[in-house]
Amino acid sequence: MPKESFDLVVRNAQIATASEQYRADIGIVGGKITQIGAQLGAGTHEIDASGRVVTPGGVDAHCHLDQPMEPPAKMADNFDSGTRSAACGGTTTVIPFAAQQKGQSLLAAVEDYHQRAAGMAHVDYAFHLIVSDPTPEVLNKELPALIAQGYTSFKIYMTYEDMKLDDIEILNVLAVARAHKALTMIHAENADCIEWLTRRLEAAGHTAPRFHAHSRPMLVEREATHRAISLAELVDTPILIVHVSGREAVEQIRWARAHGLNILAETCPQYLFLTADDLGLDDQYEGARCICSPPPRDRANQEVIWHALSDGLFAVFSSDHAPFTYEGSDGKHPDGSQASFRYIPNGIPGIETRMALLFSEGVLGGRITLEKFVELIATNPAKAYGLHPRKGSISIGADADLVIWEEGEFTITNQNLHHAVDYTPYEGMHLRAWPAITLSRGRVIWDGQFHPAREHGQFLPCDAPSIFARIG
Amino acid sequence: MPKESFDLVVRNAQIATASEQYRADIGIVGGKITQIGAQLGAGTHEIDASGRVVTPGGVDAHCHLDQPMEPPAKMADNFDSGTRSAACGGTTTVIPFAAQQKGQSLLAAVEDYHQRAAGMAHVDYAFHLIVSDPTPEVLNKELPALIAQGYTSFKIYMTYEDMKLDDIEILNVLAVARAHKALTMIHAENADCIEWLTRRLEAAGHTAPRFHAHSRPMLVEREATHRAISLAELVDTPILIVHVSGREAVEQIRWARAHGLNILAETCPQYLFLTADDLGLDDQYEGARCICSPPPRDRANQEVIWHALSDGLFAVFSSDHAPFTYEGSDGKHPDGSQASFRYIPNGIPGIETRMALLFSEGVLGGRITLEKFVELIATNPAKAYGLHPRKGSISIGADADLVIWEEGEFTITNQNLHHAVDYTPYEGMHLRAWPAITLSRGRVIWDGQFHPAREHGQFLPCDAPSIFARIG
Amino acid sequence: MPKESFDLVVRNAQIATASEQYRADIGIVGGKITQIGAQLGAGTHEIDASGRVVTPGGVDAHCHLDQPMEPPAKMADNFDSGTRSAACGGTTTVIPFAAQQKGQSLLAAVEDYHQRAAGMAHVDYAFHLIVSDPTPEVLNKELPALIAQGYTSFKIYMTYEDMKLDDIEILNVLAVARAHKALTMIHAENADCIEWLTRRLEAAGHTAPRFHAHSRPMLVEREATHRAISLAELVDTPILIVHVSGREAVEQIRWARAHGLNILAETCPQYLFLTADDLGLDDQYEGARCICSPPPRDRANQEVIWHALSDGLFAVFSSDHAPFTYEGSDGKHPDGSQASFRYIPNGIPGIETRMALLFSEGVLGGRITLEKFVELIATNPAKAYGLHPRKGSISIGADADLVIWEEGEFTITNQNLHHAVDYTPYEGMHLRAWPAITLSRGRVIWDGQFHPAREHGQFLPCDAPSIFARIG
Amino acid sequence: MPKESFDLVVRNAQIATASEQYRADIGIVGGKITQIGAQLGAGTHEIDASGRVVTPGGVDAHCHLDQPMEPPAKMADNFDSGTRSAACGGTTTVIPFAAQQKGQSLLAAVEDYHQRAAGMAHVDYAFHLIVSDPTPEVLNKELPALIAQGYTSFKIYMTYEDMKLDDIEILNVLAVARAHKALTMIHAENADCIEWLTRRLEAAGHTAPRFHAHSRPMLVEREATHRAISLAELVDTPILIVHVSGREAVEQIRWARAHGLNILAETCPQYLFLTADDLGLDDQYEGARCICSPPPRDRANQEVIWHALSDGLFAVFSSDHAPFTYEGSDGKHPDGSQASFRYIPNGIPGIETRMALLFSEGVLGGRITLEKFVELIATNPAKAYGLHPRKGSISIGADADLVIWEEGEFTITNQNLHHAVDYTPYEGMHLRAWPAITLSRGRVIWDGQFHPAREHGQFLPCDAPSIFARIG
Repeated sequence: MPKESFDLVVRNAQIATASEQYRADIGIVGGKITQIGAQLGAGTHEIDASGRVVTPGGVDAHCHLDQPMEPPAKMADNFDSGTRSAACGGTTTVIPFAAQQKGQSLLAAVEDYHQRAAGMAHVDYAFHLIVSDPTPEVLNKELPALIAQGYTSFKIYMTYEDMKLDDIEILNVLAVARAHKALTMIHAENADCIEWLTRRLEAAGHTAPRFHAHSRPMLVEREATHRAISLAELVDTPILIVHVSGREAVEQIRWARAHGLNILAETCPQYLFLTADDLGLDDQYEGARCICSPPPRDRANQEVIWHALSDGLFAVFSSDHAPFTYEGSDGKHPDGSQASFRYIPNGIPGIETRMALLFSEGVLGGRITLEKFVELIATNPAKAYGLHPRKGSISIGADADLVIWEEGEFTITNQNLHHAVDYTPYEGMHLRAWPAITLSRGRVIWDGQFHPAREHGQFLPCDAPSIFARIG
Repeated sequence: MPKESFDLVVRNAQIATASEQYRADIGIVGGKITQIGAQLGAGTHEIDASGRVVTPGGVDAHCHLDQPMEPPAKMADNFDSGTRSAACGGTTTVIPFAAQQKGQSLLAAVEDYHQRAAGMAHVDYAFHLIVSDPTPEVLNKELPALIAQGYTSFKIYMTYEDMKLDDIEILNVLAVARAHKALTMIHAENADCIEWLTRRLEAAGHTAPRFHAHSRPMLVEREATHRAISLAELVDTPILIVHVSGREAVEQIRWARAHGLNILAETCPQYLFLTADDLGLDDQYEGARCICSPPPRDRANQEVIWHALSDGLFAVFSSDHAPFTYEGSDGKHPDGSQASFRYIPNGIPGIETRMALLFSEGVLGGRITLEKFVELIATNPAKAYGLHPRKGSISIGADADLVIWEEGEFTITNQNLHHAVDYTPYEGMHLRAWPAITLSRGRVIWDGQFHPAREHGQFLPCDAPSIFARIG
Repeated sequence: MPKESFDLVVRNAQIATASEQYRADIGIVGGKITQIGAQLGAGTHEIDASGRVVTPGGVDAHCHLDQPMEPPAKMADNFDSGTRSAACGGTTTVIPFAAQQKGQSLLAAVEDYHQRAAGMAHVDYAFHLIVSDPTPEVLNKELPALIAQGYTSFKIYMTYEDMKLDDIEILNVLAVARAHKALTMIHAENADCIEWLTRRLEAAGHTAPRFHAHSRPMLVEREATHRAISLAELVDTPILIVHVSGREAVEQIRWARAHGLNILAETCPQYLFLTADDLGLDDQYEGARCICSPPPRDRANQEVIWHALSDGLFAVFSSDHAPFTYEGSDGKHPDGSQASFRYIPNGIPGIETRMALLFSEGVLGGRITLEKFVELIATNPAKAYGLHPRKGSISIGADADLVIWEEGEFTITNQNLHHAVDYTPYEGMHLRAWPAITLSRGRVIWDGQFHPAREHGQFLPCDAPSIFARIG
Repeated sequence: MPKESFDLVVRNAQIATASEQYRADIGIVGGKITQIGAQLGAGTHEIDASGRVVTPGGVDAHCHLDQPMEPPAKMADNFDSGTRSAACGGTTTVIPFAAQQKGQSLLAAVEDYHQRAAGMAHVDYAFHLIVSDPTPEVLNKELPALIAQGYTSFKIYMTYEDMKLDDIEILNVLAVARAHKALTMIHAENADCIEWLTRRLEAAGHTAPRFHAHSRPMLVEREATHRAISLAELVDTPILIVHVSGREAVEQIRWARAHGLNILAETCPQYLFLTADDLGLDDQYEGARCICSPPPRDRANQEVIWHALSDGLFAVFSSDHAPFTYEGSDGKHPDGSQASFRYIPNGIPGIETRMALLFSEGVLGGRITLEKFVELIATNPAKAYGLHPRKGSISIGADADLVIWEEGEFTITNQNLHHAVDYTPYEGMHLRAWPAITLSRGRVIWDGQFHPAREHGQFLPCDAPSIFARIG
């Protein structure tokens, strides 16, 4: 096979990596990038990217797909619809969560999750673990075994009745992470504060969706963030704080980093583009559409998040896609007796809109460089979760996961999205760019049309994080 | 010309950029990188880099060469010896200073400096300007004209009698930078505090080299750093604080960045590897060898600097090479009457050792990632000063400025260095790596032997900084 | 009765209050100060205080006396010996704790504690409550009733298995404090972290007293301090953080106060005069004598505490007198099977030495003003706990609780102290001052000899705190 | 003379000191307080203060009276009208400034100022010095001599062309303060920034009074505050930052104090009750009435100042009374050619309203305690400037300078004020309290009517500051 004979050549790409911008052709063989150069030889297929920015495909390192729920709650997106939506938005790797239920074996949870994914995914996927019941068996056997098999990150919760760990359990999990060089993600909100406020709000009849934000004020997140940092400091192991929503939590993380602690942080589109006002007025139930935790804050906090994106405080920008239909989100108690924001599923869809929102408002809006965009949506998540340089990279040997961007006028409307959720919180928002073409390992899965590839998506075992100079 | 016919191919390189590590061949034509790929076609010349890290050639964005001095002070390195030394240490781009004397035209200073450089440099070079006399002519005509011609950065001093600007002059210079999208570098030390302390030390008979550190304590730098930040905030334009030496200045910069200001920072090897103890005891004159400003601090401050390198506080790592021979640095008053640290030239050599020091102790010592190393010593300086991606980048179209690294045991000794200075402050230090080969636009200028290339080095006009999402 | 006929006149006193120093006579009638002036008329009794500083008698707002313990633990001091020791050290008001056991009625605890105090105290006393089981009955009935009866402060614990409250319980207690204008004292250490570390230390065989400090590092206190502040912020009510031990906790409190929160803080002699080194070496059991929680830190933290005393960060300086004999502190598990620092009672004696230590090293050592001394040891605790101006004040109408100070050389030795504990952690320490005379409501109870007054000490119902501009 | 025979007795006073509140009679002999007690014997004169708060008379430690100005500028108040106004507002001690002109002897300035004061003052007065020309003569001879004679505080300026010192001059003055235990007051604004901004504003035609605030934004004050702190840190001597206006400067001072530096701070009514909006709109010249430096900020900064008053950040609350008539403040250049905010005298009147504003809104508004009020307006300024306990104190031996407060409804209107200025910036403001009676050394000088006492006011030599535990 002559070297210039590529399966596919992407011509004249304005390539952007997390550190470089330059113009070149990209040659692809067997789903991998084999050459980058000026005027590469011919490919069996060719795509002309003249005048267009080409970035690595996105890595959405925080999304929920087909996660088992306590009925009647149910995730609207399974691996099929979820990865379809991802692909159409430029994301070529997803890392959803194999979630342990309390009392359940973690191995069983992983096995079950593989069955849900197998043959369903249009793009590649890895698994984070969710540890909700860190028994000695889990800590001493299951977790070490799973880490060795490529499940090198796990998420723990400081809130949610069925998920939350107490501090001693968190310390135990962090000690395993340290011993086996895994990365722990932490949802940092103080459960007791939320419960206490929720009871007071309910007692006062304040049950409309907008009171969700009142039940989780910024200090609830700040406190848990400080505590998470302290626990990580005690164990001396890195953590990643997920979905940071505003100033007070950002300040805690800055403080920690300035003191030499390895604290990574993630934020999400909802903290740039929504505010608590989107939860509606007292009598507006539609606000349920924007309920997520932590809740969106206000414009001043949005600015803090934008700034922290540009200056390097945040390592990762994820969707926290949590697909629940509005239809059925009636906030009724499971026994039907009572309606309260408390019973509305926490989470909003966003796997498809994540990248275009940040490209439009961040890059084209002059808030972050194009390199920073690539770093946040692809390179850093790939590094943090041990998938780099296979993913998140335009380099020789990397998977040919690419997005060719089109600039223009785009309006977000749910009917054009590809998830199975019946709304988007960004309905009607105007964007300046959208992926023209998404390539997953050299295969076009989106070019304005979605090209299903259910047998194509592969499970990705993860290495140890490569984002740190040294771990463990 | 068939595409696979390269002038030079670097085979099996373990390429490191500021965001990626991967293995590939690098194909070079006409001094530029034209292809990167697996198993590239043959080159007229080939270098086997198997098992070796290949990084972009270094960009030393802070070094002094053949700068006119008030006699008898004289810089030991001109463009010949200075760029020779740079090349042998892996640096392929230098950005020394065309320094205006008070009363002098800035244009004249630039013209003079071109004459000093022409036909002398073994590697490429750009010029920063030093503005010491910001007359209306300079502010309104010369600076705008020079920026348009590719001199897009200028340095100003808050100390040194013959260089320092007062606050109103600084504001005027910053306003020009803002209007014309240039970048201002600031030497931040409070001149009055230094003068006041120096007089007191001299009056007390404390004139040995070690009192240099006493005359410039950390707060002198902290104060000026805060002031520089404030002036930049007032004008609303980015600045770069050069040679930051320790915790108190770092804290000011963290504060500024956390408040959304575009403050870049640079540090240098002397703040990682030297301490004030290296200035000797009361009766030890040899300490004169380590006199630089700000002075080296202590071990605790070294740790702060290391940490700030790894966590992104510093954008740039430069040498601040300031070549004065020890012979002759007798600290005598120009009229011969008096010896004092005050009269010892400020500055130490380091253009050749900068990269290997950071590679050895930073990367191989597990303190920073290899990507961060590349970012600090090449990519970011190239971006900050408008030379990217031509310089500081391994990408298609970039100049083939490359370093092939050799790991092993190396001991720094001045007789093996190539500058014209009669000492190195790092004499006897053990390193774990050194450049095996340095390529400047595809030409081998160092491979254990220096290969002179005086006609090769070119002047590089600079674009506007590309390190910011938006400037001006 | 002619006005000039006093029961007692203290002549020529160098009076010091929390804001003033001046010379005058103090006239006392019926145990109260009725006149202060130059050359007052004659008294039935007279004391010449010429050349001596006279301050208000001390208010020790944090001390433990005859508190019911789980056997075999037992407090060495009851109200008799405890207030005897207090009196001999210049303290004329003590506020020990009526402690609720889990499952116990708080009212019952108070009643029991009154029985322990009645007829035993040589000086006046009030009670703090300890709330360890905040049932609805306690929150809704007992606490409001007790506050109305003069128990306006309660202490809660974030650590100790038998005392600790979870966050939701803390919020509930704080809400009662807010509603009824009481003040909550918080012992801030993270229980889970301590338990986790203790298990690890024990597993490694590290059971000597000195590992007590390892089991409660500074971050354990910092985290809980931040959490306590957050919970108080949520409820919007003041709190007082007791026994703050070092820099990291101080910084949290500074942060909170700078953000407008009403956070008071207390420190104790052990954080000025002991370090973790006083816990001994691995094989030295005597260190058990200095076990308290939080543990003493190091010299740098001592300096932070000194500075925070002088600059107003601390409102109150207490002893945290917790009297356990060394004899019997064998660290054996209650079942006798195992020795560990874990089973050594937490607490050290100090009710008698508190004031002289601070007067000597603080005032005479030039670290704090004499006014600040009075504020910290008497005036502020009286205000914080609703006893001012009856206590902690030299003013008309105040109780004639006074200390006449003698400057000279004093050496602390346990045989000269009056508590029932068999050691003092300050054995052999040299002091520059000690109370010459202590007056309780005009009665001499210490003048180098102790003059018992068991029928004299009275219970003091407390008003709402008067230290805030506004509470509730 | 029987002891009960007082010149004056103030009966049934609700006395408030900086640390106590209690009810008593105050007996006065020879202008001094000789007894405080319940039911004192008869006085030649008696005042019934039943139900009324009685505080020490105010010490206004920052006010300008009859200070020589460059014509046509002229201060409206001399010692006669200025102290009349002070007395009617409850202030019984003023400390205006003996200001050195550049080129002038400081001794001469003091002598001249004594002539201006002699026989004119209705209340007692001390002098601060203003050092504008720290020649060797001034530093080495005049200042030490003056300090020894009771001029123990001096003010220096970082702005104003005719007053400002450069950093080396500031260091020299601070060194004298350190050597002779004096206290240096610093007006902290960056002169160069102000000049630079003023030129730009004028060039743009922005000359209306409101642009005064634009010419001195908060960062101008923040920068100078940081610099002043740094210079004091270098010399290791306390300073007092005068008229702090808002958050950014407060943060610098908090930072300094948290780091152990002895930095005192002062604020003034204009930063609590005025905002930049009071400078008017573009075409409103009346805003000239509220021009002072630093300028009033906004409501958020007012809250910061209120909070910093209550939590102890500020030691002193002064008027910065700077009496210029509105009539004549036409902003014309001295040569008449040009109008600009630059030429409007900086300063507003406030010597009479200072205390009632803070009592009304601070104490009665529930923002600060009554004790804190006394501390800020009397006790601390007396201590800081070496006048305590003679002034600022209700204690035996203190001067009988007292204010008896009346609560009720009062409206500020200039026609009821007693200064010689033709406006008050607080016209129409409603207050809840005003002094009913002011006593200066036992003499009623205000009781709703002003009772002139020009021969009564005395010059007060000052001791070293007593506010620090240790100075020098």
